[in-house]
Amino acid sequence: MVTLETIWEAQNALRGVARITPLNPAKALGKNVYIKCENLQLTGAFKLRGAYNKLRSLTAQERERGVIACSAGNHAQGIALSAARLGMKSVICMPAGAPISKIEATRNYGAEVVLVPGVYDDAAAEAARLSEEQGYTFAHPFNDPAVIAGQGTIGLEILEQLPEVEQVLVPIGGGGLISGVACAIKSIRPGCRIIGVQAEGAASMLAAREAGEPVTLSGVSTIADGIAVKRAGDLTYALCRQYVDEIVTVRDDEIATGILALMEDQKIVAEGAGAVPVAAVLFGKVDVSRKKTVCLVSGGNVDVTTLSRVITKGLSKSGRIMELTTKVVDQPGKLIELLSILSASGANVMTINHAREDQNSDVNACLVSMVLETRDHRHIDAIRAALTGQGYQLL
Amino acid sequence: MVTLETIWEAQNALRGVARITPLNPAKALGKNVYIKCENLQLTGAFKLRGAYNKLRSLTAQERERGVIACSAGNHAQGIALSAARLGMKSVICMPAGAPISKIEATRNYGAEVVLVPGVYDDAAAEAARLSEEQGYTFAHPFNDPAVIAGQGTIGLEILEQLPEVEQVLVPIGGGGLISGVACAIKSIRPGCRIIGVQAEGAASMLAAREAGEPVTLSGVSTIADGIAVKRAGDLTYALCRQYVDEIVTVRDDEIATGILALMEDQKIVAEGAGAVPVAAVLFGKVDVSRKKTVCLVSGGNVDVTTLSRVITKGLSKSGRIMELTTKVVDQPGKLIELLSILSASGANVMTINHAREDQNSDVNACLVSMVLETRDHRHIDAIRAALTGQGYQLL
Repeated sequence: MVTLETIWEAQNALRGVARITPLNPAKALGKNVYIKCENLQLTGAFKLRGAYNKLRSLTAQERERGVIACSAGNHAQGIALSAARLGMKSVICMPAGAPISKIEATRNYGAEVVLVPGVYDDAAAEAARLSEEQGYTFAHPFNDPAVIAGQGTIGLEILEQLPEVEQVLVPIGGGGLISGVACAIKSIRPGCRIIGVQAEGAASMLAAREAGEPVTLSGVSTIADGIAVKRAGDLTYALCRQYVDEIVTVRDDEIATGILALMEDQKIVAEGAGAVPVAAVLFGKVDVSRKKTVCLVSGGNVDVTTLSRVITKGLSKSGRIMELTTKVVDQPGKLIELLSILSASGANVMTINHAREDQNSDVNACLVSMVLETRDHRHIDAIRAALTGQGYQLL
Repeated sequence: MVTLETIWEAQNALRGVARITPLNPAKALGKNVYIKCENLQLTGAFKLRGAYNKLRSLTAQERERGVIACSAGNHAQGIALSAARLGMKSVICMPAGAPISKIEATRNYGAEVVLVPGVYDDAAAEAARLSEEQGYTFAHPFNDPAVIAGQGTIGLEILEQLPEVEQVLVPIGGGGLISGVACAIKSIRPGCRIIGVQAEGAASMLAAREAGEPVTLSGVSTIADGIAVKRAGDLTYALCRQYVDEIVTVRDDEIATGILALMEDQKIVAEGAGAVPVAAVLFGKVDVSRKKTVCLVSGGNVDVTTLSRVITKGLSKSGRIMELTTKVVDQPGKLIELLSILSASGANVMTINHAREDQNSDVNACLVSMVLETRDHRHIDAIRAALTGQGYQLL
């Protein structure tokens, strides 16, 4: 059972273990919008709270035996650090293909990592087997009352930091975070709206709501890997039905824009799952014009590859990158001519592809494709004008 | 005159205006290392503190007339927001080539932006002219006692947040930030070491220390544009001589690694200038093994282009990108063969260049260059082994 009392108990237990994370105004998103920075939590994500609350509530005998979990993400690190704090052994099963950075991070927090050939489901099966064989307690990432109560402490913090809060946007994967936060806030402030945000490609809680019970999605696909969950928990489903007012979804490109906005405006790094509430605000999925709204940024453990893609998208959207293809006559000096015009326009060449265009009838022409660094859309327009003014045809 | 008393007064004045920014342990940098997150300050940088303290100390008549400054960076936004808070007019001169994002941000804080043809020095001359002509108060970015006292409030906050601090690393551009911080800390805790960090390509305070007076560098070159200052102020030079124990320098690639470490480990976005103390720790310029050390991350206003370069560098350093060049026989199906091996190894192709190698004697060969997304260095080694095992020669 998850109740306000169990969440209060979790809050007491977490003192000195989890950080009280900042809640900052985010004027760039709207005058009523605030960010709860749970990406600045230890381990880079909220999962530490639920994990620690679960482990500290085990019996002495269970603690003695140790804990096992299956995760290549934030749950793994939350369990590993919590177990270390409590002097317990922890074992984390991960699919063998997990990035070495995640494996190392989990080991560094003191866990024993077991790499299991295959995919996530194989690792989960192995965790279940080892739990049985070795007597380890299996720590579920979300469908557990102690885990949910731990996550609920974020709801209490929000109420302390912004007593006049009227609306809270929370990411939903399996539903553990929102179940706890919603239970805490609705118990104290029933008038505060709780809105869940899911990735469009992994909307399992929305599907469960529509079906009237948890259903298993045939597949999930989203850059927000932290909330790519195929099936809501039965406990989290019931709590969401009771406490959550609405669920909205956001697309991957909207999530990417959310990550970029958090970097540029708030100077913080969010993972895809953490950015979904901000994406919901940016793309008008939720009305924030009249209600003091908190976006819960749940974590910041985004891999560098994803960040790189998000930034490249942002560069092109803000006119900082220009792709350009044109023809030049195949004669010595002609490429220099083109580059001189670009240089005079203040464009910086990042890549050039220069090739004979022999499949074309115009045997004397070369095709030049370039990627340029530009200042903004105005600058791009000026470069286009300079080139067409000199007779270049832009393809 | 800058004294502890003027810094206390500034602290009082700044209550409710500047944020008290978090000071967080940064275990990944060392067990004794902490980050003072001034990048989470309003406007994304510490400059707000000095700017507001300067403007609030003007006479009623000066306030009536307004303020002018020259900056395309953090000082511009600090002045603009401070003036708006005090109901004053502000005018900011910027070089005409300033990025539209900086112009817009400054306008959004309520300033009038004057774009001046030419470079920074031209904009500064125009600001001086307008100040004379219109009676605006000119707000210097660093060489001003009120500005320095404002920045010094960060020193007081550090002492409140970590009373046992033994060493503080502070970026130096013109020297306003470190002068205030050092004065505050040394006045209260003379035994705490204050270390300045400069970009190697803009080490004007170090040059001044060596020359015994401020000198003008012939040029500056660094990705840390916020501290690319050719000449230290005379006031800041004198304060640094009095209060700063040591100045170290960091290279651009070290700064880039610092930015990336702050993103990956601390989940915060720092600009180059803000990351120099972290770079100094990462590359052993300062011994942090025995002293509780605070790295002052001064700001987070990094442009997306710089961030993109930093991340690309990070990807390749951590084995997340692999560049590969090999030869294939120029026959149908041979490229598919190569791609099949890569696909089986789990590498994701980002770009391919496939070209006849006609300058070579081997007329039957094509040269294939690729950029691949990989998991880590171990993965790269496995891909290399798979290719050479199938007879491919890696160039």
